Amino acid sequence: MLAQPLPLDGGGALAGVEIAYETYGTLAADRSNVVLVCHALTGDQYVASAHPVTGKSGWWDRMVGPGKPIDTARFHVICPNVIGSCMGSTGPASDGADGAPHAMRFPVITIRDMVRAHVALLDALGIDRLHAVVGGSMGGMQALSLAANWPERAARVLAIATTARHSAQNIAFHEVGRQAIMADPNWAGGNYYGGAAPDAGLAVARMAAHITYLSEDGLTDKFGRSLQDRDAKSFGFDADFQVESYLRYQGSGFTKRFDANSYLYITRAMDYFDLAEEHGGRLAEAFAGATARFCVVSFDSDWLYPTSESRHLVHALNAAGAPVSFVELSAPFGHDSFLLDVPALDRVVAGFLG
Amino acid sequence: MLAQPLPLDGGGALAGVEIAYETYGTLAADRSNVVLVCHALTGDQYVASAHPVTGKSGWWDRMVGPGKPIDTARFHVICPNVIGSCMGSTGPASDGADGAPHAMRFPVITIRDMVRAHVALLDALGIDRLHAVVGGSMGGMQALSLAANWPERAARVLAIATTARHSAQNIAFHEVGRQAIMADPNWAGGNYYGGAAPDAGLAVARMAAHITYLSEDGLTDKFGRSLQDRDAKSFGFDADFQVESYLRYQGSGFTKRFDANSYLYITRAMDYFDLAEEHGGRLAEAFAGATARFCVVSFDSDWLYPTSESRHLVHALNAAGAPVSFVELSAPFGHDSFLLDVPALDRVVAGFLG
Repeated sequence: MLAQPLPLDGGGALAGVEIAYETYGTLAADRSNVVLVCHALTGDQYVASAHPVTGKSGWWDRMVGPGKPIDTARFHVICPNVIGSCMGSTGPASDGADGAPHAMRFPVITIRDMVRAHVALLDALGIDRLHAVVGGSMGGMQALSLAANWPERAARVLAIATTARHSAQNIAFHEVGRQAIMADPNWAGGNYYGGAAPDAGLAVARMAAHITYLSEDGLTDKFGRSLQDRDAKSFGFDADFQVESYLRYQGSGFTKRFDANSYLYITRAMDYFDLAEEHGGRLAEAFAGATARFCVVSFDSDWLYPTSESRHLVHALNAAGAPVSFVELSAPFGHDSFLLDVPALDRVVAGFLG
Repeated sequence: MLAQPLPLDGGGALAGVEIAYETYGTLAADRSNVVLVCHALTGDQYVASAHPVTGKSGWWDRMVGPGKPIDTARFHVICPNVIGSCMGSTGPASDGADGAPHAMRFPVITIRDMVRAHVALLDALGIDRLHAVVGGSMGGMQALSLAANWPERAARVLAIATTARHSAQNIAFHEVGRQAIMADPNWAGGNYYGGAAPDAGLAVARMAAHITYLSEDGLTDKFGRSLQDRDAKSFGFDADFQVESYLRYQGSGFTKRFDANSYLYITRAMDYFDLAEEHGGRLAEAFAGATARFCVVSFDSDWLYPTSESRHLVHALNAAGAPVSFVELSAPFGHDSFLLDVPALDRVVAGFLG
């Protein structure tokens, strides 16, 4: 638990903040070998260890471990669960001062608030300066926010498949997900804890979002118009097509491990994210005091945070005089490429961490 | 009402089929001047006249009328409501033989079934051969299905912003919409007639679909990150951003004029659409007996039915030896471009109709 209340961008402060985190590798005596890994919207601190609910291996197991690109034989990796989430850090499902869950009394938070909590954690751990902060998607937003607002805290900033601001289309997809959750009668204004959760609404939200994580070509290659366990169309409303069955599975599986109110709060934080706006409307200003080296990575099949967004970011870093390397990688998996088997990404990450 | 039961691709036949339609312009004595306009998923027969529920002008008012590209001073335009829909043609909300609404007892239909009903209507009206069949999006699928299955019935086929088959991503977005409707407790297995309709679910379905009708650039140009009637973020869950407010409006407005079960059935028909599969797996075979001239139009900002789908169709028409002209138009509005102010489309339509 943080000793001090956490100031929030929306005003006020959040008292009694808990931050759940996982660590991997050994902390050097001079604390110089810390890599902070920031997770995405529905991610968690189990970057390289089994998820306690699903039992699945860590979401970036391929990237973090001994001898892997983020080499835990050399680096001490810290991965905190963001505030607002539901895997141990304080969020809407956590109890408030009155002993009842915050639910929708939880304050609307921002990406910068999440990072402020990470910095408080680093302070508590006595870590002044990170070897690197690394993140994909919303994790990349956190990495950029840390670089912009606490420029002395990281020597290297690796932002993958991300953006410096949420676009209208990004906001629109999130709004569909939020409306799906809020339309579920079980949501009950957010006060469903102890009763039936709005799983149906959350599953629809996840399904809509999941489509945006994949590329059209990837969906076609993986599923095309193939039928699911049948030779002919059923002329009914079962999942005739494999892609339908896959989406339903993604939706229902998600509800077992994620809290609907957390989905509302974290998508809201992402929609609010606009680094330029935070810094007088000019993105280069956000990085005026940067002391880090930057590496920006996009994927050619990512239509959620397309390369144009990364290029916009890189131009701002250039304008700010920050050292930055930028690469667009070719991968067929859409936005999810950062989580999947893309050997070129492994090389970029290993190379940048030095 | 059709005199004969309508045979269906799923087997059996549908008795007592009503087809609601609108006409514009005068039928020539030799019945040679008929243009059949086919509507899209959520369209209707009111192509150039006020919608009886919303009072809004026809959905293609800019295209159909005296002196307009589909010139009703010369052509007799017929626009039928597709079966499965909810504006007068037989669909799930229509009463079955027992006097109760079909609801989910309505058979799953296909695009070809819709067109079979159109052909039965043309038969009843004594119209042997159309001057042209014209449609955008699902209307284009109907135009192609007519050309493939009743090749003698149209002299000209104009297919706009459409495809010869629904892709995995197309199916995925529709499945999200269907799941949103079915997740609404008011849906009640489809038996909501006479009670509260699943408006919340239908609104979410519409919101998700609506994003796919627009282009990312169009959304950015129209809304960007502009706030709705406020100077600063609310740090709440109201519609802070204009794009959120717009989507909510689109969702709730839609429920006033459309039946949720119709949405299920028509999206299913679109997902089942695969002209090649209907013709031995080879798209060119679908057009082997074609007697029409074809015109295929795509829009460069349409990511729902991108130009690559039109090109695939044109290659098949070429392989079948059918005369076809093809143009990709530049327009910023995404898939919805076919409904909006794109003067180049007006010229193509007017020119092709001759």
